[in-house]
This record gives sequence, structure tokens and C-alpha cells, in this order.
Amino acid sequence: MNLSHAPGSGVLVRCRRLLEPALREAVSGLHPWSGRMVAFAMGWSDADGRPEGGDGGKGLRPAITMLSAEAVGGTAELALPGAVAVELVHAFSLVHDDIIDNDERRRHRDALWKAYGVGPALLAGDALLALAVSRLAGWPEAMKYLSAALVELVQGQTADMAFEERPWRGANRVTVEEYTTMAAGKTGGLLGASAAVGVVLGGSPELADRMWDMGRDLGVAFQIVDDMLGIWGDPGLTGKPVHSDLRRDKKTLPVLAALASGGSAAKELSAVLVAGVVDDDSARRAADLVTDAGGRAAAQAMADHYLTTALRVMDECLPGATELRALCHSLVDRIT
Amino acid sequence: MNLSHAPGSGVLVRCRRLLEPALREAVSGLHPWSGRMVAFAMGWSDADGRPEGGDGGKGLRPAITMLSAEAVGGTAELALPGAVAVELVHAFSLVHDDIIDNDERRRHRDALWKAYGVGPALLAGDALLALAVSRLAGWPEAMKYLSAALVELVQGQTADMAFEERPWRGANRVTVEEYTTMAAGKTGGLLGASAAVGVVLGGSPELADRMWDMGRDLGVAFQIVDDMLGIWGDPGLTGKPVHSDLRRDKKTLPVLAALASGGSAAKELSAVLVAGVVDDDSARRAADLVTDAGGRAAAQAMADHYLTTALRVMDECLPGATELRALCHSLVDRIT
Repeated sequence: MNLSHAPGSGVLVRCRRLLEPALREAVSGLHPWSGRMVAFAMGWSDADGRPEGGDGGKGLRPAITMLSAEAVGGTAELALPGAVAVELVHAFSLVHDDIIDNDERRRHRDALWKAYGVGPALLAGDALLALAVSRLAGWPEAMKYLSAALVELVQGQTADMAFEERPWRGANRVTVEEYTTMAAGKTGGLLGASAAVGVVLGGSPELADRMWDMGRDLGVAFQIVDDMLGIWGDPGLTGKPVHSDLRRDKKTLPVLAALASGGSAAKELSAVLVAGVVDDDSARRAADLVTDAGGRAAAQAMADHYLTTALRVMDECLPGATELRALCHSLVDRIT
Repeated sequence: MNLSHAPGSGVLVRCRRLLEPALREAVSGLHPWSGRMVAFAMGWSDADGRPEGGDGGKGLRPAITMLSAEAVGGTAELALPGAVAVELVHAFSLVHDDIIDNDERRRHRDALWKAYGVGPALLAGDALLALAVSRLAGWPEAMKYLSAALVELVQGQTADMAFEERPWRGANRVTVEEYTTMAAGKTGGLLGASAAVGVVLGGSPELADRMWDMGRDLGVAFQIVDDMLGIWGDPGLTGKPVHSDLRRDKKTLPVLAALASGGSAAKELSAVLVAGVVDDDSARRAADLVTDAGGRAAAQAMADHYLTTALRVMDECLPGATELRALCHSLVDRIT
């Protein structure tokens, strides 16, 4: 994902500068072994523990937390425990997801399990989660959203994994509605918690439920754009192998929407998918058919719809939050 | 572990009867796939989802929570969210530990990862942890101990894993002191949280810090007894392969104490361990040498010492808690 020239990148840099010392402090008490793994996962060092200024992620979620707190009249500093917690949960989810999905690469480097082994990486992920929870243990109103996000995250990831076993056609095929529920959980829960925790720590807990809903809608839009980048994005920017979703029968929205369109391209796409996407040629063919069947346009329209819904809630709840608004907008603007 | 004839088993049955419906309710909202895995891990069903009244664990930790609440004048029902949370954390830790340790068997059945695969089992463990946290999100005073236990659990498990890479002799050998810190975290943290959460929910949060300390001492005693059962216990009762700790260079207390004794049996033991315990003969030989070098007696004495310390705190804080006292005593009485 390339956000360096996206609107709001100056804001991201400001938030990351505030976050990083707090994040380093949060993980400083870890066992040296976990500490090394976490430093690698965060992009702070290479697999041998040598300091590195690598791509440690943009810090979108903690930025949402800090900007949400500012938007209700609090400070980014007040929101730091929440910002640290959501970033730790995000890091946890990436570490475990790479094990589950058998993904060997993450952010242009080895995945943590590839560098250190499955058992140690699993445990490092658990450590990240445990630290996240301990950061917010004293704030029950914030913890409510963090723990709800954890449940949603795991449920969504489970649904996504279960989708891979489902057929491309017939009565048991995955519907767009099922996809939306999955994405709202897997991707939206933590975005919702990021915003909700921000307004709670910023001093306006009465807005938290609506920010939670906002984040879930934003998450659906975000996930659809991620799906699109997986098919039409530049692997040099996304850091993921091209067409890997198509090769592993991932039920991504552009494909589901294309299949649902019912035309001749959809029928041909269905045949290609059922036969199995096994090489570059069949992957390219499938991607073209998704476009021909209207899947790309439908995905873009759906992402725009969920973004618009999320921004409407944000405009109502936090009318002056221009930086936060621009940041959320940029999350869905990555594909153009 | 066989506690069916231990003192306090009637109490365990009473607590389990109260716990099980609440536990089933807590996991009822899971994705069907996770739900099936959790039901298997809990001993409620077999790998195909058929109901089974198997060995789902004795429920020691939730019993400690409920009895601690009763001991301060509360009710077991009041403590139920905490009891459910600690049992879910315990189940999470077993599921992940079996993946990390590559253990194929648990409670006389396949380990969860063996039955369903590593990725799904990892995710089911995450689901258990997420549910545990969400149960106590509204009780910050209880959450403080649960989250501390999570951090301790992961840190202790990491230390234990790191010990396996350390040598049996020389300056870098594992000391009894390091072992004690590891066991207090890996095993004691959750026992401490079980007791602390119980007195918090029972209405006496001022006792929680001391109950936390009590549980950590109890955990050291418990872990030492577990180590002893791994060497001299009946595999038919423990459900674990005999001498597996010796075969994988686990730094268990009886072995560390034997090596520290410095006599001729210790020297011989050290030679056997450095050469590697690879078959039944060398495992039996190592076990005998641990006894000859005084490791068994030292382990028993140390377990007794930590139990006595824990019970002294309990007698001071909860003088009338006869059932809880008997239960804690029985945890360490398993070897005789």
C-alpha cells in the first residue's frame, strides 16, 4: 500500500512521531526473544536484530485514534494508550494472518514466521495482543470497543478462511452480503475501535457508538480497495505477490460482484475459477474477465458507497475534523 | 492429571456445573467453524462435532475464582464472568502451546491443531482469548489482573521455550532462580488472576494484590509438580507421552536441581543430557539419575515451600476459606 503521496501523509508523519516512542516503550519489557521478533515485525530491525528504518506500516489506525481525540477537543497525547493498543492489535493480526494464510512475504521482507519459525511467531503475536489489552485495562469504556474489535477481527478472519472452502457457484456460493459482514468484522472492527477509543479518550464517549459504526463502514470500503489492489495493483507497491488472492480461491468482492452480474463474461469467469487459477495466464485471464463482467466497476461503486456512508457519519459527529476526514478518504483513494 | 479422588473434587463438580452453561453461552456466538473447534478443545464434542462427555479439564482456575468470591462474602454467580474468562484464557493457552510445542496429544485425544490444522487452531485460540477479554471489559479492576496474567503467561512461555536452546552446563545454564521466574509467569499468572478476579468480583478488591501474589507462588508449586509428573507420573493419568520433557531438553526443576547438587550422579546426569535423551533407555537412565542426585527430593521440598507460602497468604486473607484451601492444597498433592 502506497500512501506516501496521499492526502494526509503529513498528518501520518506527525502521528507516527508521537506514536513510536510510546510503542517502543510498550514493548520494552518483553522477553529479549519476543522483543527481537516484535522489532522485526514493526520494521525497526532486520531478522538479526540490526536497527533498520524499514517500512513498518503507515500507522493508519493509531492516527485515526489520535485525530479522533483531537477532533473532540482532546489531545493526541491523551489518546496515546489507545493509539498504542490499536497498533499492537494490528501488528498481532498481521503476524497471525501470515501464519494462517501461509504468506511468506510482508512489507517486502520475510513474514515473521518465515524468519523465526511458526511457534515463536505465534507467541510473538500473542505477546503483542497481551500488551495491547494491558494498555487499555484501566479504561473500561475504551476497552469495550477494543475487545469488541478483537472478537470481530477473529470472527471476520474465520469467515474469510471458511469462504475459501466454499464453491464459486451454486446455492452454497458466497454472497456479497456475506462478504460485507466478513469485511466489516475483519477490517472494520479495528478501524471502528480506533475511532471509538479516540473519542472516548478525547473526552466524548457519547460519540463512540457512532464512530464504531463509521469505522465498520470504512472497513468495508478499505477491504474492497485492498481486494482491488490484489488484482490490479502494482505488486511493487502492495508488497504482495500478484494475483495471490485469485490463486487461493479468496472470495474477494470484485470477483463476487462479477459472478453475480450473470452475463457471458461472468459465465466464462466462473468456468476459469472452477477449473482453478494455477498460472500467470489463467490469473490474467480471470482478472480481465472480472473487469469485463463489471466486477471492477461494481467494486469501485461499492467502496465509494461505504466511504460516503462513513464520511457522512463523520461529518455529523465531528464536523471540523478535516485531517481525519482526509485521512479516511485517502484509505479508499488508493486505487485511482 | 487425576484429581477425581483428590480433596475438593465435590467442590470442583459444583463449580463446573455452574460454569459450563455460562461457558457454552460465551462461545455460542462464534463462527460455526470456530464453534466446532472450541467444542472439541473443551471436550464437549469429538472432531466431527458429535457431542461427547469427554475429559474437558477439571476447571481448577474458574473454581478458584468462584471460591475466592465466596470466601469474601460474594457468590459464585457474581464471579461467573471472571470464571468464564480465566477458563477461556486457559483453553487459549493450551491450544497455542500445543502448536508451539508440536504436541500431538492433549487429554487423551488429538491436539486441536492435529485435528483441524495449524491455521484454524491458531485462530480458534485467538477467538478464545478475544472472548475472554470481552467478558471482563466492563470490570477494570478485574481486567487489570487478567491482562497482567496474559502478559505473564506469554512471557513465561517464551522464557520456557528459550530455555530449551540453553545448554545443560557452563555459565549459560538455566538457574533455579530463572526457572522460578518462568513458572511464576507461565503457570502462576493465571492462577493469581483467577484468585484476584474472584475477590474483586466478590466485593473485596483490596485483597486482590495479595491473592495475585498467592497465585504466583501456587503456580510455582503447581509447575514443579507438573514437571515431576512428567518424569515419574503415570502417562495413563497425565495424558502425555512419558519422558517427553527429557527428550526435548526442557529445563524442568527436578533436573535443574539435580544438576545443581554437584555430586557424582549430577555429573553422570549431565553427561547423559549433553549426549541427548533419544530413547526409552536413556530417558529411564536420566530419570533415575535425577532421583539419585537428589532432584526429586529437592523438587518436592521446593513445591512444598511454595505451597506453604501460598497457603499462609490465603490463611491471612481468607481465614474461613476451607474449600478453596483444600483445592489449592490438592493441586500440589498430585504426586504422592
